[in-house]
Amino acid sequence: MQKLSAQDIEQAMAKLPEWQLDAQRGAIRRRFQFQDFSQAFAFMTRIALYAEKNDHHPEWSNVYNRVDVTLTTHDANGLTQRDIDLARHADEAARAHSG
Amino acid sequence: MQKLSAQDIEQAMAKLPEWQLDAQRGAIRRRFQFQDFSQAFAFMTRIALYAEKNDHHPEWSNVYNRVDVTLTTHDANGLTQRDIDLARHADEAARAHSG
Repeated sequence: MQKLSAQDIEQAMAKLPEWQLDAQRGAIRRRFQFQDFSQAFAFMTRIALYAEKNDHHPEWSNVYNRVDVTLTTHDANGLTQRDIDLARHADEAARAHSG
Repeated sequence: MQKLSAQDIEQAMAKLPEWQLDAQRGAIRRRFQFQDFSQAFAFMTRIALYAEKNDHHPEWSNVYNRVDVTLTTHDANGLTQRDIDLARHADEAARAHSG
């Protein structure tokens, strides 16, 4: 997996408006909020299955209804298409598990 | 739920040798390590079900095969029996999901 160029990242971030770029670390971050723990963990389970299937896993933390997700590709020492795909999947899963 | 006394905590910690006490915050912490993400998330799922059933949830983070768990009772502003029970459950679940 190849590291994305600055231009690739810029284009990808335009479609991920709720994610924040940590350019120095080569990572993106988003906080997800749900109604309760049950919703939050349902979301986490969706991400876990996707992550395992694609062999690309998030760094994440959870406190009750809140899930903080950080994505980076350790092997590439920065952002790759896998991070962008996982971020997009997380956004979709969050919509499905809200409300 | 009542905050545990210093003596209660001391007795409880004697049975939780792998947990660290943060006396100032009124919290206990343990790092769990598994073989891979699949094991780690299986463990997290067990904890999630227990937490939801008992309406007492962990603060936790996960990076691949590692799960860091912090337990405290926000309503009591410190440690209660619920934290001790959840810690014990986590220890048992970790044994079941290792190897």
